[in-house]
Order: sequence, then structure tokens, then C-alpha cells
Amino acid sequence: MDAIDTLLHPRSIAVIGASADATKTAGRPIAYLQKHGYAGTIYPVNPRAGQVAGLACYPDIESLPGVPDVGLVLVAPDRAIEAVGALSRRGTPAAIVLASGFSETGETGARRQQALKEAAGGMRLLGPNTIGLVNLTDRIMLCASGALEMESLQGGGIAVVSQSGGILGSLLSRAAAAGLGFSKLVSTGNEVDLEAADFVEHLADDPATRVIALYMEGLRNPEKFRHAALKAARAGKPVVVYKVGRSESGARSAASHTGALAGEDRVYDALFRQVGAIRAQSFADLIDIPAALATGRRLRGKRIAILTSTGGAGTLVADSLGVAGFETPPPGPRTAARLRDLQKNDQIVLDRNPIDVTLAGLQPDLLRSTIATLLDSPDYDAVITVVGSSALAQPTLAAGAIAASLDQSDKPVLAYVSPYAPTVLANVNRAGAPAFTAPESFAPVLSAMLVRGASADAAAAPADAGTAGSPAGTTPGGASGAPADLPSGSLNEAQARALFARYGIPSVSERTVADAAQGRREAQAFDRPVVLKVLSSRITHKTEAGGVAVGVAPQAVGEAIEAMAARVRERTGIEPEGYLLQEMASGVEMIVGVHRDPQLGPTLLLGLGGVTAELFQDTALSLLPVDRATVRDMLRSLKSWPLLDGYRGRPKADVRALEDAVLNFAAMAGQLGDRLVEAEINPLFVQEEGRGVRAADGVAILK
Amino acid sequence: MDAIDTLLHPRSIAVIGASADATKTAGRPIAYLQKHGYAGTIYPVNPRAGQVAGLACYPDIESLPGVPDVGLVLVAPDRAIEAVGALSRRGTPAAIVLASGFSETGETGARRQQALKEAAGGMRLLGPNTIGLVNLTDRIMLCASGALEMESLQGGGIAVVSQSGGILGSLLSRAAAAGLGFSKLVSTGNEVDLEAADFVEHLADDPATRVIALYMEGLRNPEKFRHAALKAARAGKPVVVYKVGRSESGARSAASHTGALAGEDRVYDALFRQVGAIRAQSFADLIDIPAALATGRRLRGKRIAILTSTGGAGTLVADSLGVAGFETPPPGPRTAARLRDLQKNDQIVLDRNPIDVTLAGLQPDLLRSTIATLLDSPDYDAVITVVGSSALAQPTLAAGAIAASLDQSDKPVLAYVSPYAPTVLANVNRAGAPAFTAPESFAPVLSAMLVRGASADAAAAPADAGTAGSPAGTTPGGASGAPADLPSGSLNEAQARALFARYGIPSVSERTVADAAQGRREAQAFDRPVVLKVLSSRITHKTEAGGVAVGVAPQAVGEAIEAMAARVRERTGIEPEGYLLQEMASGVEMIVGVHRDPQLGPTLLLGLGGVTAELFQDTALSLLPVDRATVRDMLRSLKSWPLLDGYRGRPKADVRALEDAVLNFAAMAGQLGDRLVEAEINPLFVQEEGRGVRAADGVAILK
Repeated sequence: MDAIDTLLHPRSIAVIGASADATKTAGRPIAYLQKHGYAGTIYPVNPRAGQVAGLACYPDIESLPGVPDVGLVLVAPDRAIEAVGALSRRGTPAAIVLASGFSETGETGARRQQALKEAAGGMRLLGPNTIGLVNLTDRIMLCASGALEMESLQGGGIAVVSQSGGILGSLLSRAAAAGLGFSKLVSTGNEVDLEAADFVEHLADDPATRVIALYMEGLRNPEKFRHAALKAARAGKPVVVYKVGRSESGARSAASHTGALAGEDRVYDALFRQVGAIRAQSFADLIDIPAALATGRRLRGKRIAILTSTGGAGTLVADSLGVAGFETPPPGPRTAARLRDLQKNDQIVLDRNPIDVTLAGLQPDLLRSTIATLLDSPDYDAVITVVGSSALAQPTLAAGAIAASLDQSDKPVLAYVSPYAPTVLANVNRAGAPAFTAPESFAPVLSAMLVRGASADAAAAPADAGTAGSPAGTTPGGASGAPADLPSGSLNEAQARALFARYGIPSVSERTVADAAQGRREAQAFDRPVVLKVLSSRITHKTEAGGVAVGVAPQAVGEAIEAMAARVRERTGIEPEGYLLQEMASGVEMIVGVHRDPQLGPTLLLGLGGVTAELFQDTALSLLPVDRATVRDMLRSLKSWPLLDGYRGRPKADVRALEDAVLNFAAMAGQLGDRLVEAEINPLFVQEEGRGVRAADGVAILK
Repeated sequence: MDAIDTLLHPRSIAVIGASADATKTAGRPIAYLQKHGYAGTIYPVNPRAGQVAGLACYPDIESLPGVPDVGLVLVAPDRAIEAVGALSRRGTPAAIVLASGFSETGETGARRQQALKEAAGGMRLLGPNTIGLVNLTDRIMLCASGALEMESLQGGGIAVVSQSGGILGSLLSRAAAAGLGFSKLVSTGNEVDLEAADFVEHLADDPATRVIALYMEGLRNPEKFRHAALKAARAGKPVVVYKVGRSESGARSAASHTGALAGEDRVYDALFRQVGAIRAQSFADLIDIPAALATGRRLRGKRIAILTSTGGAGTLVADSLGVAGFETPPPGPRTAARLRDLQKNDQIVLDRNPIDVTLAGLQPDLLRSTIATLLDSPDYDAVITVVGSSALAQPTLAAGAIAASLDQSDKPVLAYVSPYAPTVLANVNRAGAPAFTAPESFAPVLSAMLVRGASADAAAAPADAGTAGSPAGTTPGGASGAPADLPSGSLNEAQARALFARYGIPSVSERTVADAAQGRREAQAFDRPVVLKVLSSRITHKTEAGGVAVGVAPQAVGEAIEAMAARVRERTGIEPEGYLLQEMASGVEMIVGVHRDPQLGPTLLLGLGGVTAELFQDTALSLLPVDRATVRDMLRSLKSWPLLDGYRGRPKADVRALEDAVLNFAAMAGQLGDRLVEAEINPLFVQEEGRGVRAADGVAILK
């Protein structure tokens, strides 16, 4: 039995600092254990109490009559360290430390946390600064959350892993009030030892868990998370993540555009996408999406029937779905005929959707057969039932009708509760149809179900085993593949493009010249206007420095160099290292970059390039390694993709050569490993089909 | 006393079709009138009942002992027409028709609705297909909504005007459960006579109303709405609108890009912005924003203090605010010192925000003085108090502490309720602090308060009186200013630009030629490469037709014309009318267009132009007329604005000339009036400062 198994199924629990007063935080855990029917042994430990909640109390850990499976440590930080040491010495396999005042409070706390870790020795720890965990499958509460005061806590298929204890309580109380049930809830707190990814990995094997909801503040170990999420995907258990920290994006500065364009939060997006996790955009989504996925029902298309007895509410839902690309077609002739036969209602209008059966349609049998007819109809992939204000007088009508029709189909059935009607909401959820009070809930929920419906088989395949063709950008850590003769530091443009050329990325043809005189001579090799650029490893944004001139006639190159030298010196105070004369490439200008996200590692950015790259921010991100299919998906996700694909009568661009260049760039990043700080080509000209690509400018920083 | 006044304050009400069974829809209105204490006279009318709810019942309208102020008509559609006729004959000033089955159900219903209108004669009508209206200020309910079953309906400063009856019930029950109060609620239904704008106009004068929440499906009369919304703005009463129909945007096709880029829903956005109405993006916003604005408290900046006792929930709120551009700075030294003195808590960490007072800070006096300290601090513009799971055991703690600190400042105080705790939510709202259960609520609410705080004085000024300089694009209706010699139909490019030139918009220099031979001769006038374009009034997208060639050397023009002729014929089957040789203009390519929105009238579109205009959709919209300030705001709202403003060392573009051209274009649209179907310049080259603009292509369609 591993430590997490022990934490979730302890045969005995020592509660260190248990209070005899059940209204105090330190009195709650034993009260909750007993209230919800824990059948194992509880050892209260408290030198100042003889009995706690009818149980014999022990003065200290040393005097316990047996070794507990789990120590639940409720005492203040300093005494928690002692208690953890004592539990470890007794051979306790795992402990939970609730106290705050550790690394989350600053340096003193961080030292305390280090001492806690040392005191634990070989014993596994959950926390500190956690509210604990709840195993609702087996009704074992190792938790101090006030949310456990609730009378009825339902078991169910949703597991929660939260880096915040308060969020665990919030999710538990909100979902329980809505009639939803959980399997396990864990708050991981400061993660001195066990972390969120460990629990995701464990829950992937938990038979009671169908969906994992994850509240994340940040990842300590992205590889562990990646592994755990892919394991859950293979087990057919969706991971739905709400991650905070979105507002930090763009706060970091970087030498290349890539860092500024990537933004830490977008890299998390890429990570979640790559491991098949669904990102919840609103906090409500973190309950709504798991609730819908836990039903196991399959959405196979985008055609949604909305059944209503009240006009406005149905319109709200339809409008919100329409914005997200779902369809609400009117019933086809056969379905319309069946509905008309059922309803015998001359006011029913069947040329539209929402399908409004009016108040006359609100009879139990009629509502049940209407839902069944819509579920049975080949016109629709899912049914949403709208519950109006009239439900306040009939709180079981909708739930009963929905429950009676669920068996007829595995299509999703959902409900929108328009008035304030918490009882109706809970009834419908308990009947097995996810019910929501926000019209905006349906689009993200159905989108998540659609992804699951379409890719359930694909997700079950071993996604981390790679696809056809070896992915580019592997070789994690180290720089075993890096050539021995590489320079260090920030490369100038010519050096950077020479580096890229080693990896098979062609550049524009060019000459490097030292000054105006040499420029005049070398310009004779060009028969058309050229691009003139300053050469400097210290200037990364040449345009702003006045260091780029486009369309310079060959005979005017000398004069242009003199003017540029003066301009650059004036604007930057930097003496140019030389100048580049380049052919004027043409085609679509792209940007390709790699930078190292401080948490998540090397990241590939691909997007519309040129001087306006940062203005339009039309980019896609993926964590390395990537394969050709990923690069294709990235390109097709761009707004500017049509420019590459023969937009409005233009010739198609050489997309295959672009893909090759991107894969070569990613392979370079993989081989250079930790030596590569960041690298970027901007612009990379993608010429007409068959003519390849040309790197026209580049940045690379090596360690 | 006007009709709306009568509807809101009737001294006597005839209820046509009143049922003696209070559980039936037709029994509710009298039950609700009595339950909520209506003091006027009620006349039930029902030939099959002797008494209704203890009141003498009349067999028909003719036998009523007096003329009622209002007729509330509950009978089915056909009988409703009779009843309305009878009420009108008796001289009743106004009636409400609840029945559905009118224009919303199709053609038969539309004919019924016409008959209803005719039966009303001079009597004013609310409905049909309405749930009625509620005057909570005076506790008069002319409404059948099941939401009125609720025991405690609070009066308050929020008025609701809804085109849907179901939505009225939903807003009423949700807000009442949350402890919020209303002044008046009106459902306007099919608006055969009185429409939403009439009520907005009336409520602008209602002393009990502080904010107007409007649920809109569409506008029958945009001018009336504009007038009403501006009147409300002048009265200092914000109008918050939730409008459905967002998913229809882009569904229409149009000859120019302008129609496709504008989209009907974006035109509503422009209308709301221009009349100072706030658009609610989510349905919850339609309660949340009015609740906050109704407090009358002033937000003067973006620095928000978040006071919490639980980490995660505070982070949720802070993150969501950060994404929207609000700041959550840590307390400054003076504020930190005061907090430390108060809390006497060594675990409090004062170098961050959310400011976490931990569970130890949850004492009534302590919480009150902490809130007061933050309100008093010059570091913050508003305070959000987070209520955690511990509140479940202390449901009045937060509300009490907040209520006691409100008087100290007029800064906004709001609350986030993290667990499911409806009682706490209602307590806090009743205490005067808007409380929300979604972390996403705060950003739109505070953004709306910020706009109100900054522009309270500006909004009070008569915004429809125009600003300095006469706005361009006036002359509504008619075409009095249209020159007499204009052609009709779709103009070709040369004709279109000639039209624009009459209004002072310069074009690129050019020659029109009939064929390759003439082209060869005329090309000698150019000393640099030219743009060659096909000339045809039937081809609006020349690029796709192969009818544009860029950078053609003067000596190659003849050959290029021959190739283009063949290409255009092959792709379109259209015979070219001729060809244009144009100078190659340079500069930033913009698009300027006018089209006529079917509901809202002439609309100006301004954005990044060129062939990629539809790809990046970087555009701004305003309804005509516009003034220079509006055009400036539109330009600055574009992502591509920096391109005009000296982006990355480039020369600045001639923005003044661009503004002039746009104002001239708008003036043209005003003068042409109804004759102009749509017009567009794309691209309009904006050259370097001092060099003006050049229209390089244009479309115009005249009636």
C-alpha cells in the first residue's frame, strides 16, 4: 500500500492537538470523522484532555498504544515539527500538517518548512498549510473544512485536487448544495512532499473517480504532472484544470519577441492542450464541466435542442451556444410531426429552436415524452431543458421527466434553471442531468463533452509515446548534442543565422561589410534593391535603433551606411560591428522562436512575423518536443493561416518547407539543450510553393 | 398623467378573466395584488364566477361600476381582442395583455396582433405576450410571474425593463434571493404599442430608480432608444443592457467588406457606447452591475484591496481583476503599520494583497476596523472582503462588520462569498455591499463603476447636443444634400473615387485606359512601377478575380494588361470595362466604410485595410453622425494604431489628414442620405505626416 492509499484508507488515525470543543478548528476533524461514520481507530493526542468526543485521549505520540496509519497534525507550526518528528520515529507511514505559517509567509516560514521536511524523514507528508483530504467514497474525513458541517454529502464520480484548502471547501459546499457528489477531495497546500500531480496519478487508478477537477496555482514538477495527466487520459478520466496566475502573463521581459509573446500563462495553455487536459476558463466551469463529463454521456455533434416553456431563457442559452459555434436548428419534418402529435397544442411553434411548448406543455408525461422524442431524433446531438419560474410551484416536475427519459439514449441531457430555485437545481442534478444557473455554462461544458466524444478513443491511446516520425526538440536536459565549437552569449544576426543554417534553415543571400567603402564595392554584386541592416550583438531591436533600411538601390548603399551609422550612434550610443547587405526576400513573414519557460521548460512559438508581430500577437505555442502534426495544427490555428494557404487568389506559400524549418529549429533547440537560452527567426520569409523559406533576421542567446 | 404613470399607479384595476383558483395563472394577479398590499380598487371580470378572492366579480367589462385605470387582460388571444375593444370603449386609459399567440408565432399571430392594435384604438397597450409589470416602490403588482410567490420582495433602486417576461421573473427571483431590491419591473413583450424605450424614458424621471437594467432582444425604434438612454444618462441613471442576438453577427453578406466586418451585434455595441449605456456581457452582469451602481459609491482608481481569511478565494478574485487591468498592490508602510497594530497577529503577512488576516482576524470588531483601515487608506480605491467557509458558522459576521464601516467613506465595498452560503450573500447585500459568488463578477462591475466615477459629470452634460465642431454624417433621412448629377447602382472604382473626390478625399494619381495599346502609351507618363487594376462595376473583389497587379514596370504595362484580361475572363467570365494605371502609394493601409444597418441606420467603419482587412478584423464602428473626437477614439482603439503613431522608429503617419478624410466621408454619407446603400475606401493610404492620404480603391452603391 503506497502512502496515498494509506492517506485515503487509514485503519487508524492519530489526531495530534485534538480539541474536546467541536466548534474549534482543532475539534472539527474528529467530529467530522465520527459524524460521517469512520469505522477505524481514532487516537486523540492532547496532554490537556482526558477524553475527546468520547474517545480516550493520549498525552503524547510516544504513549499511543499502536502505530497509527496516519497522523493528522492540528498543532501550531513549531509544535507541528516536533509532532512530525515523533510520528516518524514511531514508524507512521504518512502525516497531514494543517498549520499555516510555513513557506507561504516568507523566509522564516521557509526555514520552518525545511525543518518540517527533515523531521519527517522517511514518513510521507501532505501539507503543510492544507485543510486535509476527504474520501467520500469510503466516508473518511481527514479534514477541518467548515464545508463538512453540511448534513448530506453525496458520493459521486468527481475527484478534486486543490492546491488551496479554501477552494476545496468552496467546491465541496457549492457542488453538494447543487446535488453533485464527489469521490475524493484533497488539498495539497505547500506541497513539501506529496504534490497535486501525485494525487492525479493515484486517482487515475481509482475506480470511484470518473473525472478529476484540479485547482492549480503553479507546478513544482511539470514532468510529473505531464505523466500523471497522460495516465489519467489513458484511463479515460478527463482532467479539468482551473489555473490562476493569468494576470501575470506578459509581465516578464525578454531579449527576443518570443518571451513577450509567449507569456507564462499561455505556456500552461500549451501544456494542458498537449496532455489532453481541459482548461476551465471560469471558476464555475471547474464544477460544471466535471459534472457533465462525470455523466459519461456522449456528445457526437453540435446540434442542440433547447426545450423551453418560457421564451427569454431559451434564447439566452441559444445565443450563448451560437457564439461558441453550436447550432440550434429547428426540428426536421419527422421530429416536428411527432412533437405536434404529442403536444396537441395549437400554440406550439415548430419552425424554431428553442422549442417552446408553453405552459401547456408542462405536464409530467408530456414533458417526459417530449424530451424522449428530442433525444430519439436524428436532428439533435443533445437536449437542454429550460426550467422556468413556473417550476417554483412544481419543484420535481423537470427532474422527474428528465430521469424517466435518460435511459433511452446516451446523448447528453442538460438543464438550465432560470429562476432562483436551488431545490430544483439539486433535484435535476441528482436525476442525472447536469443543471446550470448561468446560460454561459453550456458552451464550455458542451465543448468539453464534444472533445471527449470525438477523442475518447484517441485519448485512450498512449499519447506520450510519440506519433509517426520522431518528434523534434527532445533530448531533455543537458546539451549532449550541442556542437563543440559554438560561441557563447548573445549572437549577432549573422552568427545567429549561421547557427540556424547548421540545422538546415536557409537564409537570404547576403554580404557582411565593415563600412561604407566596403559596402559600395560589395553592393555591385546585387542587381536589385537590397535591405541594409546594422550588425551588432548588443542591439536586438534593430528597427527602433534606426538600423534597418529597406529597398536601398545598390548604387546608394555607401551613402545609406553612413547615414545609418550616424543614426544608430545617436539613438543607442552603440558603435556598429558592421553591416549586412541582404537580398530583398518576399513572401509571408513568419516568426519562429524558442524560449525556456522558467517553470515548464523549452517552448516553441510560431506565428505571423515581421515588424508587426507584437502588434497583432497572432501566435501559437507548444512545449517541446513537437512533431509535424503539432506544427501543422499550430499553423492552422493562426488567424493569418489563410495568407499561407492561397488567400484571395494569391499563390500558396511553401508550407512544407516552413514545417521543415520549424522542425529543424525545434531539433536544434533539443540538441542545444540547456545551452540555448532563447532563439528566434523573425522574419522567416515563406516563399511561393516549391521555393522554400529564407531566414532574414535572427537572435540567439547561448550559455 | 401619462399612460405609463397610469400603468404604474392605477387607482383601479379590472382583471379580465380572473380565476377564483389562485394556483392558476389567471388566479395569480389578484392574489399577488392582495398579498403585497394593493390599496386601490380591483374589479375581477369573469362571467363564470360570482366572487374572486373575496371581491365581487363582474360578468363583463360593460357591467363594471366605474371606468378602471388599467385593464389587466388574462384571457386567450381571440377573447383578448374583444376585451381590449370593450375596455377601450369604456374609456380605459391603458391595458396589459398577457396572452401569447400573437406576432411571435408567425403570420396568423401577426394578423391577430394587428386586430388587437385596432381594437385598442386610443387606449395604450402593454404587450401582448407580456408577464406584466411590478411597481415595488408602491407595492403594486400587475404581473403573473411565479416569482411573486416569494415572501419578501424588497424595494430598492434597480429598475428592470425586459422584452421577455421569463427574464423578468428570473431577474426578480434571483435578485430577491440575493437580498437586492427593485423599484419597478416591466416586461414589454411584443411591444404592439408601448416599448422598452418608452419605459426607460419614463424611469429616467422616477425618483425611486437609480439604475435601469434592460434586457433587449432588438430595437423597433433606435432613435427613441437613443433619446431615452441619453435622458437617463443626463439624469445620472446608468442604463445597463444585456442584449441577445450576438450569434447572428457575421451572418449577413454584403458587397463590400464593411458589411461583413461590421456585423449587426457590433453596431449595437457602437450604439450603446455612443449613448453611454453599459453592456452586460454575461447574464449575471445584468444583476451584478446594477447592484453595484445602485449603491452610488464612487470608484476613482484601479487599486483594489482584497481582505481575506482564506488564501485561495482571494487569489481567484485578484487574478480575475488582474486580467482586466485592475491593480492589487500590497499596503504601503503607513497602512501596513496600522494593520499590524490592529491585528496583533504574528501570522499576518503585509507584503502582499490579498491581505490575509487568517482565521484569527475573524472577530467582529477586528474585522470592522480592518475594513475601515483599508477604506481610509490612500493606497486603495475600493475594498473587497472575501467570506470563506468559516462564515457558515457565523452568517452575520461579515455583513455586520461591513455595515459598520460603510459610513466612513464613499469608496466601493464589495464582497466575495466563497462557499455556498445564500444567507450570508443576502445579509451582505442588505448591509449595502454588493456581494457576488463568481470571482469573474468583480472586473465588469468595477469597470462599470470606474466609468461612472470618471464620467459622472460628463455623462450629465447633454451628450446629444453635439460637441465642438459640427458632427459629420447628419442629415438623417432624405437626400436633400445629394448632388443632382449622381449615377445610380454599383459604381466602378474610378466612379467611386470620383464621388469621394467631390467630398475632398484625394486619390492616387492614375490613368484610365481601354486596352493594352492605350496602356502602353499612357504608361510613359509614369517613371516608377505602377499598380495595374481591372475596371469593372461587376467585380467588387478584384484581387480574387486576378484583376490586380502590383509593381508593374511602365515598359511592361501592355503585356500585363493582356495577361490580366485573359485571367479575369477565365476566372469570372466578365469582360473588363477598362484598366487603371495607378501610382504605387505607400503608407499605412486603412479601410473606411459606411453601410446602413437594417435596424440601427448608417454606420461608419474604420480600421486596418488592405487585402488582409477581413483576416485581422481590426476595426472600430460608430453610428453616424460622428465628430472628430469620436474618429480619434476609434483610431486609438485599433490594435494597429501604433502603426499610425510612429511604431518602432517609423515616421508618424498623417493622422490629421486621415481624420479629415474620415469626417469628409461621413459628411458625404450624411448628404447622400438614403441614396447611399454602402461605400468603402480600401485601401486608403495614410502617408507620412504632412503628406496626406490617398484613396487607392473604392466601392459605392447608390440608389
